[in-house]
Amino acid sequence: MSRTVVRGGLLVTAADEIPADVLVEDGTVAALAAPDSSAAAAWTADRVIDATGKYVVPGGVDAHTHFELPFGGTASSDTFATGTVAAAWGGTTTVVDFAVQPRGGALREGLDAWHAKADGQCAIDYAFHMILSDVNASTLKEMDLLVSEGCTSFKLFMAYPGVFYSDDGQILRAMQRAAGNGGLVMMHAENGIAIDVLVEQALAAGRTAPRYHGEVRRALLEAEATHRAIALARVAGSPLYVVHVSAQEAVAELAAARDLGLPVFGETCPQYLFLDVGRLDGPGFEGAKYVCSTPLRPREHQTALWRALRTDDLQVVSTDHCPFCFAGQKELGRGDFSRIPNGLPGVEHRMDLLHQAVVEGRISRRRWIELACAAPARMFGLAPRKGTIAPGSDADIVVYDPHARQTLSAATHHMNVDHSVYEGMEITGRVETVLSRGEVVLDRGTFTGRAGHGRHIARSTCQYL
Amino acid sequence: MSRTVVRGGLLVTAADEIPADVLVEDGTVAALAAPDSSAAAAWTADRVIDATGKYVVPGGVDAHTHFELPFGGTASSDTFATGTVAAAWGGTTTVVDFAVQPRGGALREGLDAWHAKADGQCAIDYAFHMILSDVNASTLKEMDLLVSEGCTSFKLFMAYPGVFYSDDGQILRAMQRAAGNGGLVMMHAENGIAIDVLVEQALAAGRTAPRYHGEVRRALLEAEATHRAIALARVAGSPLYVVHVSAQEAVAELAAARDLGLPVFGETCPQYLFLDVGRLDGPGFEGAKYVCSTPLRPREHQTALWRALRTDDLQVVSTDHCPFCFAGQKELGRGDFSRIPNGLPGVEHRMDLLHQAVVEGRISRRRWIELACAAPARMFGLAPRKGTIAPGSDADIVVYDPHARQTLSAATHHMNVDHSVYEGMEITGRVETVLSRGEVVLDRGTFTGRAGHGRHIARSTCQYL
Amino acid sequence: MSRTVVRGGLLVTAADEIPADVLVEDGTVAALAAPDSSAAAAWTADRVIDATGKYVVPGGVDAHTHFELPFGGTASSDTFATGTVAAAWGGTTTVVDFAVQPRGGALREGLDAWHAKADGQCAIDYAFHMILSDVNASTLKEMDLLVSEGCTSFKLFMAYPGVFYSDDGQILRAMQRAAGNGGLVMMHAENGIAIDVLVEQALAAGRTAPRYHGEVRRALLEAEATHRAIALARVAGSPLYVVHVSAQEAVAELAAARDLGLPVFGETCPQYLFLDVGRLDGPGFEGAKYVCSTPLRPREHQTALWRALRTDDLQVVSTDHCPFCFAGQKELGRGDFSRIPNGLPGVEHRMDLLHQAVVEGRISRRRWIELACAAPARMFGLAPRKGTIAPGSDADIVVYDPHARQTLSAATHHMNVDHSVYEGMEITGRVETVLSRGEVVLDRGTFTGRAGHGRHIARSTCQYL
Amino acid sequence: MSRTVVRGGLLVTAADEIPADVLVEDGTVAALAAPDSSAAAAWTADRVIDATGKYVVPGGVDAHTHFELPFGGTASSDTFATGTVAAAWGGTTTVVDFAVQPRGGALREGLDAWHAKADGQCAIDYAFHMILSDVNASTLKEMDLLVSEGCTSFKLFMAYPGVFYSDDGQILRAMQRAAGNGGLVMMHAENGIAIDVLVEQALAAGRTAPRYHGEVRRALLEAEATHRAIALARVAGSPLYVVHVSAQEAVAELAAARDLGLPVFGETCPQYLFLDVGRLDGPGFEGAKYVCSTPLRPREHQTALWRALRTDDLQVVSTDHCPFCFAGQKELGRGDFSRIPNGLPGVEHRMDLLHQAVVEGRISRRRWIELACAAPARMFGLAPRKGTIAPGSDADIVVYDPHARQTLSAATHHMNVDHSVYEGMEITGRVETVLSRGEVVLDRGTFTGRAGHGRHIARSTCQYL
Repeated sequence: MSRTVVRGGLLVTAADEIPADVLVEDGTVAALAAPDSSAAAAWTADRVIDATGKYVVPGGVDAHTHFELPFGGTASSDTFATGTVAAAWGGTTTVVDFAVQPRGGALREGLDAWHAKADGQCAIDYAFHMILSDVNASTLKEMDLLVSEGCTSFKLFMAYPGVFYSDDGQILRAMQRAAGNGGLVMMHAENGIAIDVLVEQALAAGRTAPRYHGEVRRALLEAEATHRAIALARVAGSPLYVVHVSAQEAVAELAAARDLGLPVFGETCPQYLFLDVGRLDGPGFEGAKYVCSTPLRPREHQTALWRALRTDDLQVVSTDHCPFCFAGQKELGRGDFSRIPNGLPGVEHRMDLLHQAVVEGRISRRRWIELACAAPARMFGLAPRKGTIAPGSDADIVVYDPHARQTLSAATHHMNVDHSVYEGMEITGRVETVLSRGEVVLDRGTFTGRAGHGRHIARSTCQYL
Repeated sequence: MSRTVVRGGLLVTAADEIPADVLVEDGTVAALAAPDSSAAAAWTADRVIDATGKYVVPGGVDAHTHFELPFGGTASSDTFATGTVAAAWGGTTTVVDFAVQPRGGALREGLDAWHAKADGQCAIDYAFHMILSDVNASTLKEMDLLVSEGCTSFKLFMAYPGVFYSDDGQILRAMQRAAGNGGLVMMHAENGIAIDVLVEQALAAGRTAPRYHGEVRRALLEAEATHRAIALARVAGSPLYVVHVSAQEAVAELAAARDLGLPVFGETCPQYLFLDVGRLDGPGFEGAKYVCSTPLRPREHQTALWRALRTDDLQVVSTDHCPFCFAGQKELGRGDFSRIPNGLPGVEHRMDLLHQAVVEGRISRRRWIELACAAPARMFGLAPRKGTIAPGSDADIVVYDPHARQTLSAATHHMNVDHSVYEGMEITGRVETVLSRGEVVLDRGTFTGRAGHGRHIARSTCQYL
Repeated sequence: MSRTVVRGGLLVTAADEIPADVLVEDGTVAALAAPDSSAAAAWTADRVIDATGKYVVPGGVDAHTHFELPFGGTASSDTFATGTVAAAWGGTTTVVDFAVQPRGGALREGLDAWHAKADGQCAIDYAFHMILSDVNASTLKEMDLLVSEGCTSFKLFMAYPGVFYSDDGQILRAMQRAAGNGGLVMMHAENGIAIDVLVEQALAAGRTAPRYHGEVRRALLEAEATHRAIALARVAGSPLYVVHVSAQEAVAELAAARDLGLPVFGETCPQYLFLDVGRLDGPGFEGAKYVCSTPLRPREHQTALWRALRTDDLQVVSTDHCPFCFAGQKELGRGDFSRIPNGLPGVEHRMDLLHQAVVEGRISRRRWIELACAAPARMFGLAPRKGTIAPGSDADIVVYDPHARQTLSAATHHMNVDHSVYEGMEITGRVETVLSRGEVVLDRGTFTGRAGHGRHIARSTCQYL
Repeated sequence: MSRTVVRGGLLVTAADEIPADVLVEDGTVAALAAPDSSAAAAWTADRVIDATGKYVVPGGVDAHTHFELPFGGTASSDTFATGTVAAAWGGTTTVVDFAVQPRGGALREGLDAWHAKADGQCAIDYAFHMILSDVNASTLKEMDLLVSEGCTSFKLFMAYPGVFYSDDGQILRAMQRAAGNGGLVMMHAENGIAIDVLVEQALAAGRTAPRYHGEVRRALLEAEATHRAIALARVAGSPLYVVHVSAQEAVAELAAARDLGLPVFGETCPQYLFLDVGRLDGPGFEGAKYVCSTPLRPREHQTALWRALRTDDLQVVSTDHCPFCFAGQKELGRGDFSRIPNGLPGVEHRMDLLHQAVVEGRISRRRWIELACAAPARMFGLAPRKGTIAPGSDADIVVYDPHARQTLSAATHHMNVDHSVYEGMEITGRVETVLSRGEVVLDRGTFTGRAGHGRHIARSTCQYL
């Protein structure tokens, strides 16, 4: 039996902030003890990690990544290998990525393909959501099977007609099925049919620069789709999780639904919290780096998002990590913003950026951990193994230095992408040491993990229901 | 050093539900461990409590009791001695009672009087809120002092003109002071000036029976006062805690304020969740037993209250325990409902009634503990000593049998009152064993505590801010 | 010059209730005068109509009729000849019917076809809206032309996929065009894509009776479509008029939009105000008579509709007159509710039913005339010729007996349909005499009009903008 | 019999805009006729007023003036004589002023006093509201009598403790009485108890300049009082009219109440529509000119008020005319803003300022007349004698030149006050000729009226109920 003790830190979970020592036995948290207790004193260990003056927090759970995602004739630039290493550097020890059903194919086919991509490659644990590209009698049936295998959430798109788009009838059927099998429907909520009209009109009028991406994808059309998804979920009697919420009007729809007691949930992402639509209007073609959907919004939307994170009208912060290099990838959209691959890198910085929000007084320490670890774990059926530090949970543990300062930059990050959307941003706080199931994968600035350590985790159903 | 181990139970806190053994050293939780860990195996103890098949939960925190409260020419019938024993029987290990400033006197005077009542009498720990009967320059100044001494919350009344009533100017001043010193203003939110007109008109029209108590204290007038209290708190820049919310329209006001991100909180009580206004219309003078303010409401309000407990628009369930015997006390109001002493017994049943809601699927187990233990502890500056089971917290621990069945009755309860408002109600779940700071005060149906074990707890300020 | 005087009545318009005599010269209102004025005394006339003890009100404007509408393999049973006679009997002197663009054809083609149906047939004046079955570059262009010709409103459907349905992109384009040319988009707001899933599921489950029509067309799906139409209109910067609103949740969407000052309007119909969903569950196949879309709703929705008529959150009451005989037409849907032709008769009873609401205290007399005459005239560019009695307006005048009593019945009505949805309903008030452009078309119970008297009216654009 | 004809103008009422000639016989509108009708051609007249190219509109109804009002140790500077002349210059032909019950005295006493002030002095017609300074059994009884005498509205104050203030119990009783006798309660809705705390604190801190008047009278405290007044009206079952609404948050309260169908009404005034809080911060003591309560607000509130005037969430624009000279009156508050007499001049400019809003596209011509004439007449029981031009109505007629330009200034106005709050403002539109009950009181720039022409008008009850 291997025994590791983390001593002297302030244990911060979604629930508590207490001085506590942590005992790890064989990859699992065996015990917590008051530092001055005889129980703690009695512990022997193979390895002692000194966390004095540091926070001891659960490893992050990033419930929204896209590694090796084919999109717009290219693919996102992080593999499961590179992406999970970057995640580990940033204190994230579990990712939930999206397997994609091939149009016309089976869910199984897509899921197998994604398993193949990840298998043996990952530095940290991982799980899968399933993207439904094609809702029909056969795939509806497959949903039940996937739930039983631990792939318990299904993403649908109200945007991207001709690619991922499902119409309201397909959405309703999928939601009805999820209502029966315990699955959680995740929604990309933008009225893509209307947006595509605006895209066509913009391009026809010669408005081809990146900033028009932000103009055509109207906040009202995100709010509309959010409202519609909620209505369809009510008709189906199913829960709903709205991904990458960026518009304050969409937040208002979620808040109204939640006031009614409906099982409606929402996530936002660091890019919507820290970057605004002005980025799309950068010099030259720089704006392309900031093209993602939903788009960045004017600054007042950030205020609404932070408030919703505090009021629990949004429950989760994920990254929607979907990096494309500027050179050769983002550049595909020169002269036509609609051809810019949609997506941003971010898996490495989520824990730090949210800690920065703690520093700035926007959220409390406990809420930091709830948003980044505990809530995504519960939302997607990973608790209590993931998202907390408690007896019996996986020993995914981060020793976090709240006083260290760092500057984010493509020059130093570990994601496989040639730029950083946070280039030059100064942050207080840094991940010091990371344990994944008891193994040290990051040791005070040295990566000590390995591809293949990370395992697939079969998930239970949503634990908020 | 005394060591107690609670083994084999399911540890339920506001955050987690995990099988865990608990080690208590000298009144404090020293460690938690996975049951099958070598750490747990290594523990030795003076006393082992077997919790197999049971829940191990934090002792309840009842943030709203009135022991020995003079009211309407009589006094509530539980003393600190009898009331805290009843609380212990029901799994509550901390109460926060209300000291009353004498009109024209100093806060200190009131606080000292209540300390005198409680000192040496209590079976469990206790703390005090302060009722401001008289807001003036001198008492505003005293508020600062009380905060520094650990009496960090102050109750004001928009009802009871001539008794506890403060006008909007006094309320505003008290809120401004609280905004400066970290205090939390608690509000009895009913428009007492308007209600007293309706009372007078009802009595003049010969409507003197208990049920008219429920008619004159209109839900709209609770909602109005709630709205007004929120507005005044916004002007003052202070937080607000609304006590004993019973009207769905009042809940809506709180929800709207919280959607704006305002630091506004609300509590409800078991009587509003389980009893409806029909009780006031019982045979003979029976209705008098159910006279409390705010009053019981029609059944649809219960639905709204349960929903608000789930959506976190209400955060705390307290009892507003304020018992008056039917004989000799409630009877004071025969022929004039306005003379019926306002208040119900309840301190013994809160944990059980909320567990019943778990059984019925209204709330989750974790939410049960949050509403009854963790949230009141955080709200009133008692965390993490109270309200949770974590290394370093007070060893206030309840072993709860989720399968036991019991029937509530005055014949068996331990509160000093001659009737039960829940007479005959069947409940699933029962407190089996209770530890207060490590001492067993209830041992499988035998009370083993003692007057004077309970200590006054100086509180820090609200931990939600 | 022909001169008619209407003497002694109480003139009721949307604005005023005054005793006034009315002088008609050559089809136009020439003057109004106080009955006791020397001006009134000086009038000479060819014909004097005595309105003593009666109301003198503007002829009704029914902005939503479907005469000879092909639908579901049959056609609505009233022709322009029969339908306009029935309208005249009911005090309606202007109808706005819907020309239908043939799928794949031109707007012009549809409009010409409808002109051909109406030309020379009508007993009263008429105008046309245009149904867009096919939004494309060519029909968008044609919209401008139609506006210039006096067909200034365009109906789109979010329901009936494969028949009239337009997707959100088509709707957005049509709204953008209307924003530019002054046209008003009228919307059938139901999420037909989702509804068709529920229809298919109901039929597959053997739920084929008429009452399932009411179940599958969920109020939430009407509200959703209403919300979406409003969002699309905001994006387009266009006004919006929602037809046949029946769900209280849809009313709430309109009210919210109007509180924001958006140019959003709504109509309801007598069937939604007086009949409830229980009708669909009549004995045998009787329920089929009550099949219309949006469907009849539970009774509480009626309360909301009446309130909205009072608060001006709904502005117009039209009939959506679209009759199908029970024998041979409604019967097409035996064994499959989805094959029941959608629509009810009503053009004859609107003025009477709304007067009944005056009698019952639901609306005022002035509001009666506003809802039934003035508002539809203004909404669709017919004022001040239609909808009021003022110097210069068309002499479309109804002498209304507010005290007469009548019983509605298929045995006595003049619509070409074999049943009445109001069979046996007793009403206080009856049309006594009707003038259409100065000609008496109904004279105290005798129809004196003729086919071909009615003229097409070219409309200006919406007068609420 | 005297006969006057107004020929060739565009008749604009709340309902219609039509070319029409108007025949006046003995002070009453005898007839309206189409200009080209034989009826119009047949009219003979003693006097013909040529309105070619002009509007012919009803005389304005200003439902909120304070002539000779004692306030703060001085009195408003316009007498009934000077004030009604100024009103006539501005196209207002009816004012409703406020009689004040002396504290401790009878309503009758106050009403008699105001009748004495007005009798024989007025150039135009007038009526009275009653200010209740003292709600008690005796004054409640008197309310019934006043209603029967045509004084049908009663103003209460939630502000000005110790002067006009009524507590919530008094307000409730007055509302209950009004619910029974048809009276309309008018409310000054500001939480004066809380405001006085802020006033005292401001003065104590040396914040004595006029601009602090705007700071202490918080928008939230206007909204709170508005909400409370609505709640009390709901409890009483009475209608409510809120005077001088200036805060957008108060507008929101009214809109919410009206969405519920409650009989709740609101007025705003030109100063809130055209002036903002910045005026209070003028050079020297200039700000004092702009001191009124409710206070001027930041500019965004103007936007909300205009929107509410369009959406009918506000129904009336009155002036709250209450002028105090700068010299000797406003100056009483040097060094203490709370001693500045509250009030502004405005009775002369309301029609012009609202016409300016027509010119600027904020409201339609018909809405102009509705807000300024028809709605106040209906609200306060003056229709159809006042507020419209229809057969039988009083011949209060304004010929309005929509193209004339003028500059507002104390140098040219006719109000008895030494400054203008609109000094230098350029306006398009001007009153040309004014008839009061058929008599020309202003003839193309020459005042031709006389003191004593104006008569007291006994009012019926509110015509919106």
